[in-house]
Amino acid sequence: MSSRSMRLLAWCVLLALSSGLAGAEDVCDDGGPDAFFPTIEKVVYDPSSRAPLAFRHYNAEEEVCVKEDCRAMKDWLRFSVAFWHTIRGDGSDPFGSPTKSWPWEEGEMSAMARAKVRLRAIFEFLDKLGVEYWCFHDRDIAPEGQTLQETKANLDAIVEQAKELQEKHDKKLLWGTAQLFHHKRYINGAATSPDSRVYAYAAAMVAMAMDATKKLQGQNFVFWGGREGYQSLLNSDIKQELDQLGAFMSAAADYKEEIGFDGELLIEPKPQEPMKHQYDFDVATTANFLRMNNLEGKFKINVECNHATLSGHSCEHELRTASIQGLLGNVDINTGDPQTGWDTDQFLTDPVEATRLMLTILEQGGLGKGGLNFDAKLRRESVDVEDLFYAHISGMDAMARGLKQAAAIINDGSLKAFVDSRYRSFETFDFRQDFKSLSALAMASDVPASTESGSQEKAEILFSMFT
Amino acid sequence: MSSRSMRLLAWCVLLALSSGLAGAEDVCDDGGPDAFFPTIEKVVYDPSSRAPLAFRHYNAEEEVCVKEDCRAMKDWLRFSVAFWHTIRGDGSDPFGSPTKSWPWEEGEMSAMARAKVRLRAIFEFLDKLGVEYWCFHDRDIAPEGQTLQETKANLDAIVEQAKELQEKHDKKLLWGTAQLFHHKRYINGAATSPDSRVYAYAAAMVAMAMDATKKLQGQNFVFWGGREGYQSLLNSDIKQELDQLGAFMSAAADYKEEIGFDGELLIEPKPQEPMKHQYDFDVATTANFLRMNNLEGKFKINVECNHATLSGHSCEHELRTASIQGLLGNVDINTGDPQTGWDTDQFLTDPVEATRLMLTILEQGGLGKGGLNFDAKLRRESVDVEDLFYAHISGMDAMARGLKQAAAIINDGSLKAFVDSRYRSFETFDFRQDFKSLSALAMASDVPASTESGSQEKAEILFSMFT
Amino acid sequence: MSSRSMRLLAWCVLLALSSGLAGAEDVCDDGGPDAFFPTIEKVVYDPSSRAPLAFRHYNAEEEVCVKEDCRAMKDWLRFSVAFWHTIRGDGSDPFGSPTKSWPWEEGEMSAMARAKVRLRAIFEFLDKLGVEYWCFHDRDIAPEGQTLQETKANLDAIVEQAKELQEKHDKKLLWGTAQLFHHKRYINGAATSPDSRVYAYAAAMVAMAMDATKKLQGQNFVFWGGREGYQSLLNSDIKQELDQLGAFMSAAADYKEEIGFDGELLIEPKPQEPMKHQYDFDVATTANFLRMNNLEGKFKINVECNHATLSGHSCEHELRTASIQGLLGNVDINTGDPQTGWDTDQFLTDPVEATRLMLTILEQGGLGKGGLNFDAKLRRESVDVEDLFYAHISGMDAMARGLKQAAAIINDGSLKAFVDSRYRSFETFDFRQDFKSLSALAMASDVPASTESGSQEKAEILFSMFT
Amino acid sequence: MSSRSMRLLAWCVLLALSSGLAGAEDVCDDGGPDAFFPTIEKVVYDPSSRAPLAFRHYNAEEEVCVKEDCRAMKDWLRFSVAFWHTIRGDGSDPFGSPTKSWPWEEGEMSAMARAKVRLRAIFEFLDKLGVEYWCFHDRDIAPEGQTLQETKANLDAIVEQAKELQEKHDKKLLWGTAQLFHHKRYINGAATSPDSRVYAYAAAMVAMAMDATKKLQGQNFVFWGGREGYQSLLNSDIKQELDQLGAFMSAAADYKEEIGFDGELLIEPKPQEPMKHQYDFDVATTANFLRMNNLEGKFKINVECNHATLSGHSCEHELRTASIQGLLGNVDINTGDPQTGWDTDQFLTDPVEATRLMLTILEQGGLGKGGLNFDAKLRRESVDVEDLFYAHISGMDAMARGLKQAAAIINDGSLKAFVDSRYRSFETFDFRQDFKSLSALAMASDVPASTESGSQEKAEILFSMFT
Repeated sequence: MSSRSMRLLAWCVLLALSSGLAGAEDVCDDGGPDAFFPTIEKVVYDPSSRAPLAFRHYNAEEEVCVKEDCRAMKDWLRFSVAFWHTIRGDGSDPFGSPTKSWPWEEGEMSAMARAKVRLRAIFEFLDKLGVEYWCFHDRDIAPEGQTLQETKANLDAIVEQAKELQEKHDKKLLWGTAQLFHHKRYINGAATSPDSRVYAYAAAMVAMAMDATKKLQGQNFVFWGGREGYQSLLNSDIKQELDQLGAFMSAAADYKEEIGFDGELLIEPKPQEPMKHQYDFDVATTANFLRMNNLEGKFKINVECNHATLSGHSCEHELRTASIQGLLGNVDINTGDPQTGWDTDQFLTDPVEATRLMLTILEQGGLGKGGLNFDAKLRRESVDVEDLFYAHISGMDAMARGLKQAAAIINDGSLKAFVDSRYRSFETFDFRQDFKSLSALAMASDVPASTESGSQEKAEILFSMFT
Repeated sequence: MSSRSMRLLAWCVLLALSSGLAGAEDVCDDGGPDAFFPTIEKVVYDPSSRAPLAFRHYNAEEEVCVKEDCRAMKDWLRFSVAFWHTIRGDGSDPFGSPTKSWPWEEGEMSAMARAKVRLRAIFEFLDKLGVEYWCFHDRDIAPEGQTLQETKANLDAIVEQAKELQEKHDKKLLWGTAQLFHHKRYINGAATSPDSRVYAYAAAMVAMAMDATKKLQGQNFVFWGGREGYQSLLNSDIKQELDQLGAFMSAAADYKEEIGFDGELLIEPKPQEPMKHQYDFDVATTANFLRMNNLEGKFKINVECNHATLSGHSCEHELRTASIQGLLGNVDINTGDPQTGWDTDQFLTDPVEATRLMLTILEQGGLGKGGLNFDAKLRRESVDVEDLFYAHISGMDAMARGLKQAAAIINDGSLKAFVDSRYRSFETFDFRQDFKSLSALAMASDVPASTESGSQEKAEILFSMFT
Repeated sequence: MSSRSMRLLAWCVLLALSSGLAGAEDVCDDGGPDAFFPTIEKVVYDPSSRAPLAFRHYNAEEEVCVKEDCRAMKDWLRFSVAFWHTIRGDGSDPFGSPTKSWPWEEGEMSAMARAKVRLRAIFEFLDKLGVEYWCFHDRDIAPEGQTLQETKANLDAIVEQAKELQEKHDKKLLWGTAQLFHHKRYINGAATSPDSRVYAYAAAMVAMAMDATKKLQGQNFVFWGGREGYQSLLNSDIKQELDQLGAFMSAAADYKEEIGFDGELLIEPKPQEPMKHQYDFDVATTANFLRMNNLEGKFKINVECNHATLSGHSCEHELRTASIQGLLGNVDINTGDPQTGWDTDQFLTDPVEATRLMLTILEQGGLGKGGLNFDAKLRRESVDVEDLFYAHISGMDAMARGLKQAAAIINDGSLKAFVDSRYRSFETFDFRQDFKSLSALAMASDVPASTESGSQEKAEILFSMFT
Repeated sequence: MSSRSMRLLAWCVLLALSSGLAGAEDVCDDGGPDAFFPTIEKVVYDPSSRAPLAFRHYNAEEEVCVKEDCRAMKDWLRFSVAFWHTIRGDGSDPFGSPTKSWPWEEGEMSAMARAKVRLRAIFEFLDKLGVEYWCFHDRDIAPEGQTLQETKANLDAIVEQAKELQEKHDKKLLWGTAQLFHHKRYINGAATSPDSRVYAYAAAMVAMAMDATKKLQGQNFVFWGGREGYQSLLNSDIKQELDQLGAFMSAAADYKEEIGFDGELLIEPKPQEPMKHQYDFDVATTANFLRMNNLEGKFKINVECNHATLSGHSCEHELRTASIQGLLGNVDINTGDPQTGWDTDQFLTDPVEATRLMLTILEQGGLGKGGLNFDAKLRRESVDVEDLFYAHISGMDAMARGLKQAAAIINDGSLKAFVDSRYRSFETFDFRQDFKSLSALAMASDVPASTESGSQEKAEILFSMFT
């Protein structure tokens, strides 16, 4: 806690006590509403403002209608802040040490005490930013203990606090996940480790994290297998590893049923990094994995945009590919650098890109239990708390523009009408015929000498009218 | 025909007639054995030769044993020459006109006469190179007619000639395919065209090409959907297009049964180019497509190495990914430039890479009906017929080295023993347990603090001892 | 000429004759003002229009001020249409045949007659689009003859006609260039060919094209060396080739002086394609080449955005890198596909990207004699003349938005003030000191424990307020 | 020190004392010759060995002749071990914690005591591996102090020890460098920092590290500017930053003269990572920077292969590009993963690639004061000390094969003769003519209809005969 927030806490307790209030702790235990960001006011919507700390586009309660489906912006967008980046991101990179000195990391304290301070920090951040959801990794909110029992106790205690804070601040959990890639026991994978002790330990971790997510009424539970892949085919048996992964995910789906967790299970594809190849390479690969293991209907997909581009696809492609298979569950909304071959996890600030993404999301009627999780981090060079706000504001405004523009495109209808008209010959043609009948048809017709213009440029104009 | 080969033909006919031979045409109709490459002798195996036109590693009949499975090199490798690149490649590129002046393109003649000359050229090439198989696209061996009937007649005539040439030269067809991407009718796809006339026409073409392949006792039939994809998501309905593609491929599988074609059906993945995205992006995407359409067991995959690397994978990765799913049917053996983002279709000349590929192929016991098809082309700057030989010799020698080295690695067994030992903890551990029992196990054990070294560097040494 | 335009021509001549007009040919010789695009009206600015064929942002005569420097939009932007893409682009690609059937390619006629028709087409296009400049390659406007003399005569005749058309339509030439990559004589380069005959021939071609450009009062002359590079280092002597290129460019600069051409000479970098490596890889490489050959001050650079991204840079990076060295002369305004590794030459339609580019251009006070040349082509699938208009309208509107937004950012001044403040410590610090004095300074000061936030996110908000 | 090495030390001291030896410390102070790798014997050359811990190709004293220039392998190759990777690499990555538990990191001790232990470890490693050179970063061998004075004292003490160890073990320093990227003070660059205090501090660091390198008779001093670049053009003034960098490097060159350091100054290009763009992008960019700042002749270039490929070039390209400008000074010999967009710093194990690199190096007569520095690291998953040996052995054997094969290619002469013959028309042709005379020549000659085959495939065969 900063010295300022320490003073605030002291002041609060004194005031509360002098007022004869019982439960001063209830009021003051998080250091007051300004413990961590004392210089920041709640960010407001002010379209004409030139102040950086304001929304120019995002207006949480403003209603946006897609055809007849009208919802508040916040309910279309379901923004979520990622605990690991925003609270735990320290600015280190492979060539440099941490750069951040966040208020919630000040002073000396035990790992559990620190964990509690950090948790309060994210709720103050959510309040001031006006975001309703958060997401966590087990290991980022609660430290590992010496034993599995201690690890569980740590997590339970933090979850208890999180539950209270969620209620007090009126916030919700978008999703939880088990972090199975950071510790050196996972060097060769978790579910795909060649070490069976690690496999069993990882299963215990997922069970524990799913329990925690259930307690916090999380809407989803996510699997990102950062080490589930290989560095070299020379020393790897990928058949064995994929079999392990299939069994592991089946057991996870069963566990969900067993404990009655009613959120969605989501797999998050990524092509590589840290591994040279990751088994959940992209949406199509993940769908194939689900089908191979008879897991259709048991998992959806969490598309992360920067992962999409690293896999050689646009994010829009991954969203659509998931959506047409009924697999689009959540979006980790971020972006990469088009000239950079690693995961930069930048905030997506481009309103045109945002519109393309929202088009697919709106066309499938929103994300259901899913949302838009800011799996995005400050640049290493950005070390002020204000930067955390600038970054999220940029992302929220971009997505809000995307939402409004995508809704306008859908409501206008010209673009869809244009696309539909391209396929009009199939309205009266049954393409599920055998080759004999199709050949007969072709034999009886003129040889097609050409076909219609695709007029992509016209589609781009119909799109750009609204962006 | 070159003036030289014209003279040869004339000489042959005179000689045959003067000898009172009936059927002089049978003997002479291909202009004699040196009509197209009069300066080139049959390429021989001579390991100590410094002459460019010799094999230093490929020795067709030499036996190579993988454990107890001993076969001649040619039977492990099953090389095939691609008609389109070797005979039809003209050296044009997006920035330049054709550069080749091949002997079989000399003089003025009708399209069908030209087609027949070209066909004779490839058989002379196969003879001199000592390769047993060839592959074709329908449109590259036989010209399109004004009507579908005429197109069929053209193809039938060429197939008849090809059948005779195969017998005479003792050659075989590795695979045939229908070329559904070059004509402007396919601008928006063939099976995925928004124009139902094109869909039906494409079906007729595949039926016709599969018939031709059957007549030539082709071992496989390949689908590469060069335009089956999209340029822009803004003007495309990918759900509709994938549904069309699924129906089309199902009809193709049915047609195979109907006509009693006993070769394999193979899909050849490519991520993009010419389209921005192609639906058969990579092995995993193709496998997912097959499962979505209940086509498991009906298709295998033809992996092209340059397509593999364009999709962000090593070729070895694609081979293994196909192999462990029982989908590896054929390899279009070529390579790309690691700094270049398009399909350069170069001959694979790197013996280390060749060894990695052959390892996977040998581990699955060879390619069955498939083979190694040189889907590779001369550089545009290479305009001499000798260059055609240099290129194929390089490729054949590289793969022969790969074969011998991969066999040595398998027979030695150290590498496999090393890999297997990494997974030894799973020999006595049932990973198909539920999370409750796995958690109980983990709770009862020490927390795994680390795990064994992956020792990739050791695996690399065990590999490099043989390469 | 389309049958429609043929009828228009006939009608025009009849009308003119019946009116007793002398010089009916003057009026009608280009088939009238609607010979090629009879269904298209002049595109107008109408910000509220929902019709695709209208400008929503580009208003040619509207004044835009950057600080005190006020110019009409058209004078800031200096748009140019590329003859090769718009008139000569036929839609072929490495996997497919031509797809376009443009009116100016109809009917049978001699190469020179065709060349004249095409030239009229571009001037009608410029008129209807409202663009002032065009650009050409010698070989695209005039066919090569059997002899160099005939080639020159062809070019002279076309240039004569172009001069008349420029005057009649009140259009100007932004730049000309010699096309030294398409013919097979250039397979191994033009100036860098290992064949000295090709070197001399290429020199003659550049001289001829520069003469033509001078006659047409071209503002610039461009060098894009499509084959000046290598395919393989194994068969190339790059020292020799770079020496040849240096001598060639020096001779070009001398020739400019000799003939009194007062336009700028521009080199257009591209990293590769068609060659594996092109010597003018990017701006920095080109600048190094100029310095190595003592050509500073004699050439500027024509940055093409799609080439920039292929070289691993953003287009903005290349513009700035050129600009700070005084080398930014022209922009070939297009864009690529971020997931595609070849030159897609798409129209740039993203207003955010446009703003970033215009920021650099406005900061250096515009492009001088240079402009924004649409080196961009229709998608192969777009085969209607309307598509040509949609494409250019998209590009012009995007750049117009970019211009207005960039001007607003500069006039507002917040972004620049923010950037300048980051470097304020250097206002009072002489960095041109030796290490002894710097070390002494450092020794006498506290060790710097950290430094200020880079606050990239704040800069992004200051930028996004105007975009 | 491991418990084993502690015991060894104790034993050594006892033995020495009991023998009445004076100077027991001299003998024992590094814990004896097996303090850190007690299980590893000196690696020997044994071409027929199947043991992983042996050289099959590298035979240090074996003479290799390139034409008449005969040297021992070790003198052609001048291998160097990188202190930072081999001794300090801890296996952490952006997604995971350290994985290594090296013997020299055991136990608790002060930062300076630890530094001394580490230094002894590398000399034992050099001895057992049979490598003559090492390289260091200042900050990796000696810890930063509270003050600059303390930092200097730390470095001085370590340098003193290194000097003794170099003498005792008969080892040399290939190069030293100042590490100016890890500490958060460098977030926005060192020489290009917008904070003048950081600029001065960085200058002091370079001066200090160059002094240290001189004391250790280092052959070269390297500059890799990991943070000298930008993350975003929106918040950067690249003109200002490049001016700073130019002044800084000029001062460095002056300082070298001033202190009489007679090694080479080398700049190491890298395109990006950690920054989005790094100013020393590649060889050409660095050469341009040198020319812009009148630094020709004062710096050479250290090409790192993995950096080369990240910049879109082959390593061979970068070596040649440097070599033909007289700039090739040293090679950081490693490789990347062709499917991976970040610096993987793998050991180069491909003998074909090694041959291509050695060809360029031998053609320029070796590297002079430079050498081949293994700027390469174990995979994170490799955690055994044996892995460190496997890795270096692989790299040394690969380069030894490359050396022998490249020498054979040069001595054979066929490849060079083939390349030279391609340019033979220039032997009698002066290409430094003006366009008038070249045009006249062209006018008087036949139009060149084509040119000779580039026969890249033949060159590949001439190369592959020896690889």
